[in-house]
Amino acid sequence: MKIILLGASGTIGKRIYDKLSKKHDVIRASRSGDVKVDMTSTGSIEKMYKSVASADAVVCAAGEAKFAPLSDMTEDDVYVGIRGKMMGQVNLVLIGQKYLNDGGSFTLTTGILADDPIAGSAAVALVNGGVNSFVTAAAQELQRGMRINAVCPTVVEDSAQAYGDWFAGFDPASMDRVANGYVRSVEGLITGRVIKIY
Amino acid sequence: MKIILLGASGTIGKRIYDKLSKKHDVIRASRSGDVKVDMTSTGSIEKMYKSVASADAVVCAAGEAKFAPLSDMTEDDVYVGIRGKMMGQVNLVLIGQKYLNDGGSFTLTTGILADDPIAGSAAVALVNGGVNSFVTAAAQELQRGMRINAVCPTVVEDSAQAYGDWFAGFDPASMDRVANGYVRSVEGLITGRVIKIY
Repeated sequence: MKIILLGASGTIGKRIYDKLSKKHDVIRASRSGDVKVDMTSTGSIEKMYKSVASADAVVCAAGEAKFAPLSDMTEDDVYVGIRGKMMGQVNLVLIGQKYLNDGGSFTLTTGILADDPIAGSAAVALVNGGVNSFVTAAAQELQRGMRINAVCPTVVEDSAQAYGDWFAGFDPASMDRVANGYVRSVEGLITGRVIKIY
Repeated sequence: MKIILLGASGTIGKRIYDKLSKKHDVIRASRSGDVKVDMTSTGSIEKMYKSVASADAVVCAAGEAKFAPLSDMTEDDVYVGIRGKMMGQVNLVLIGQKYLNDGGSFTLTTGILADDPIAGSAAVALVNGGVNSFVTAAAQELQRGMRINAVCPTVVEDSAQAYGDWFAGFDPASMDRVANGYVRSVEGLITGRVIKIY
């Protein structure tokens, strides 16, 4: 398969790349990658799809969102995640549905904070919960046999130390288990699923 | 209690008003109501809270979102709901947390499409799912004993005919049952709950 991977240099993206590239042609797209893309720009996303013709899958492990204490949170804080991780991923689908091959798939990334929030996570929860519901809905309407899922991990092993006590008591998921969520979505037949890795 | 109600002229809002106004001082806020507010403007929300001093509860049954087939959906279609029903309600909380009385409550409105989408509902699902997760997260951080819940109804009896076949097979909820969800949130002690009326 020809797969476009956004966020291949990230903690999770690296592992997705390692796993998928053994069997597939994985094209890394990022602000500075093999293929250039700025997820916050619909024009840039459209250009990416035009430059990578006939892809079979898009996997997104990228998209910014902002942590902030609720008491200090501003509309602008929330919009960082809306423009980044939320609409970035939604636009990958809205635009990509015109470009992917028949039977192609979208695999987005959300996270446990949609259901099990921590301190400062209200804006991130909003983004994750929104994308989860979007995936459930979009799966019903995608045409030409296209599929869509979200991988929704808990804190992952390679990030657990960086987050320190923020995720106290959460069991970190192994990187392999998280990467497998993306493989299930890309290589399987499931659609409309929020693949919870926790 | 002194309660600010947004959307009091709507299908659900009218019933909320009827029920809550029997026991409470309910102030109707809308673009043309007793108190003026434009939910899409943080400045207007701030002004509303300043003009209605010392409220005990905010109930929102307002906020626009747009249905569109996924194949035609644009970023702008999605942003109608993001600016309206999503960030309108989020801003009611972010700003309102500074103005509500100790022990005050926020009651927002989402809907079944977060979990059980219908045709054309991907943007509405996104909004509902996002607000549901925001409520779950925000509840943990609200201070001074403040609470927050979302009422998440299925299609309601008084709208079922207008929606025609869009909600085919869904059991419409009685208006009384839906209005009761808001009463449970306002008068009860629950917080961080998505009160599903289905």
